[in-house]
Amino acid sequence: MNDILEFWYDFASTYSYPAAMRVEREATAAGLRVEWKPFLLGPIFQRQLGTHDSPFNLNPVRGRYMWRDVERLCAADGIPFRRPSVMPRNSVLAARVGLIGIDEGWIAPYSRALFTANFAEDRDIGEAAVVADVLDGIGLPGGELVARATSADERPRLRKQTEHAEKLGLFGAPSFIRRGELFFGGDRLAQALAWRG
Amino acid sequence: MNDILEFWYDFASTYSYPAAMRVEREATAAGLRVEWKPFLLGPIFQRQLGTHDSPFNLNPVRGRYMWRDVERLCAADGIPFRRPSVMPRNSVLAARVGLIGIDEGWIAPYSRALFTANFAEDRDIGEAAVVADVLDGIGLPGGELVARATSADERPRLRKQTEHAEKLGLFGAPSFIRRGELFFGGDRLAQALAWRG
Repeated sequence: MNDILEFWYDFASTYSYPAAMRVEREATAAGLRVEWKPFLLGPIFQRQLGTHDSPFNLNPVRGRYMWRDVERLCAADGIPFRRPSVMPRNSVLAARVGLIGIDEGWIAPYSRALFTANFAEDRDIGEAAVVADVLDGIGLPGGELVARATSADERPRLRKQTEHAEKLGLFGAPSFIRRGELFFGGDRLAQALAWRG
Repeated sequence: MNDILEFWYDFASTYSYPAAMRVEREATAAGLRVEWKPFLLGPIFQRQLGTHDSPFNLNPVRGRYMWRDVERLCAADGIPFRRPSVMPRNSVLAARVGLIGIDEGWIAPYSRALFTANFAEDRDIGEAAVVADVLDGIGLPGGELVARATSADERPRLRKQTEHAEKLGLFGAPSFIRRGELFFGGDRLAQALAWRG
């Protein structure tokens, strides 16, 4: 257990994008293995805050800063960024596919590709065709996986994952858990990696 | 102008405490001079969010994390921390006194002493006697300064300061401004110091 970093993220979350692009590289350098944990922020915001929209949309002053901040973070990390025309995008299907990716071992490249589609290519990751195309692009059977992810068998898993996130005390994304300790925000990655409990 | 880092903070803001304790040391090491800018978050939250309480009280899940996070930050920085029995405390008088401290050149030691009273000694900085005592403790005439800070001449200054903060796009504290660029959060200090525009 001690060599694991849990990385909790929502595919619609702006700050999750740069975190997803560097978490594995930095965790590996620190001798840790990343457990990728896609979940949904929407139901958590709804239960904790009673709101349906992103906090960045609810406070436009904060939203304006967030876009600038994410742009700066991406520039500093050398990753492409194009402000999505819609925020937040529906990340339900993306997360459901992600849960299959955990089982099958392709969650990391899939997550990076899907984040890139949303935040560097302004593609609507809420659309099944886009998710399927991203999967095809990394050599996976997109159509088949999207169909499986939306099947009656698979659907309850994401709700359970999100409930689990809430039990862990999560209230935003990205978040990291290291030896039972919660860290919120991409800027806490180094602290989480160094955490000795 | 290029050698200046503006440091915007509220004496009631938890994350402003560790930032205040290290900003001058780190800015000086980077060759910059700190302009200390106390302001009030309350009226800004009220205007931007329509809420009267701290966001950390409005979402107890986030609040619980914040206390743990601040405790960890203070431990990492080697500064004392004791969770205040009341949060947020009324920071109006503290900020008014701070504006005089800017004029008279004692804003930095005063700010550090007052933050310490709130976040390491659990003293009620909303009380005039406490603010006066903190001033006395750093060799300043506490009673006299508190009286001046609450005089009719002084009172409009803090409202102007807070309006100015809002015009700059501030929505939280601590915030830094470097060469016209806004950075939010103590974890952005290094980025603000390194900013070349």
